[in-house]
Amino acid sequence: MKRALLQELQQKTAAILDKAGIALTPEERANIEVADFGLNDVYRTGLELVTYVNTDRCCAKELVLFPGQTCPEHRHDPFDGYIGKEETFRCRKGVVYLYVTGDATPDPICRPPKGDEPYYTAAREIILHPGEQYTLVPGTRHWFVGGPEGAVVSEFSTPSFDEMDIFTDPRIQRIPNIED
Amino acid sequence: MKRALLQELQQKTAAILDKAGIALTPEERANIEVADFGLNDVYRTGLELVTYVNTDRCCAKELVLFPGQTCPEHRHDPFDGYIGKEETFRCRKGVVYLYVTGDATPDPICRPPKGDEPYYTAAREIILHPGEQYTLVPGTRHWFVGGPEGAVVSEFSTPSFDEMDIFTDPRIQRIPNIED
Repeated sequence: MKRALLQELQQKTAAILDKAGIALTPEERANIEVADFGLNDVYRTGLELVTYVNTDRCCAKELVLFPGQTCPEHRHDPFDGYIGKEETFRCRKGVVYLYVTGDATPDPICRPPKGDEPYYTAAREIILHPGEQYTLVPGTRHWFVGGPEGAVVSEFSTPSFDEMDIFTDPRIQRIPNIED
Repeated sequence: MKRALLQELQQKTAAILDKAGIALTPEERANIEVADFGLNDVYRTGLELVTYVNTDRCCAKELVLFPGQTCPEHRHDPFDGYIGKEETFRCRKGVVYLYVTGDATPDPICRPPKGDEPYYTAAREIILHPGEQYTLVPGTRHWFVGGPEGAVVSEFSTPSFDEMDIFTDPRIQRIPNIED
């Protein structure tokens, strides 16, 4: 991702958080993480994040989705004695459409990004409005999409090792490559 | 605590969270926890809480303090193979004055509630404005006070066992007794 695009997305994310009444320090604001997952189409497939804390015992982040933006399907598996990340998504603002492993919901609101259907298998729909939340146990495949006005979602979890996330789409690179 | 007082405090807490733009479900709103710590003077010594999630691996809560309200000094020690609660306080709204073990801050902003001084020993002052946070390791004695407009504080932590909290004041009962 080009640095100019990163900065544009950081500013838009900060504006969404401001509107949601969520305060950031100047340092957090300057370091908002933008994941384009290496697919080079970040408004379609992407996620914006602020990590508040990630110790060896627990983690909390704020996730931001633009309208219709999809965080692609992945799961958090056990590795090296760690039993895998457990995470709770709590919608703070907007609406988030979450898809998890389980019985497919008939007529879901969202579809995978066009052309990427083979990499989206979880089809049980969970709709989270502000104040609503859902807890994912380790190993659950999941993906999620911002509603018409985007979404702000708090994530409360066990420690996060983003580089160990397992994406269904083999093209994905979780850790972004920023170019000047 | 009388149920009528509990309900009054629940309504005031909900109003503070509404003003901070923090959404609750109707069920969460009806079950806001009010701790008077058995001291029967809740506006002076008390804490209001909404627990979002508390699994065997991690926990997240929203804490509310009224203006000048003090959450009394306590610590989270190891027990039964649990190495003790680690917690991060992140101020969302208002100001919170946090006092932890360590070198005493000269001329601190807050004092312990009058008459209760013997039960307050932590004297290192940490001031948290919106967006600022502090992580406490297990066993750290701490107490905190809401600023002039009160405070909303997100707590991100390892599992919470409130009944195991160790308060410096031996009169304190953490789990409230509600009377009709």
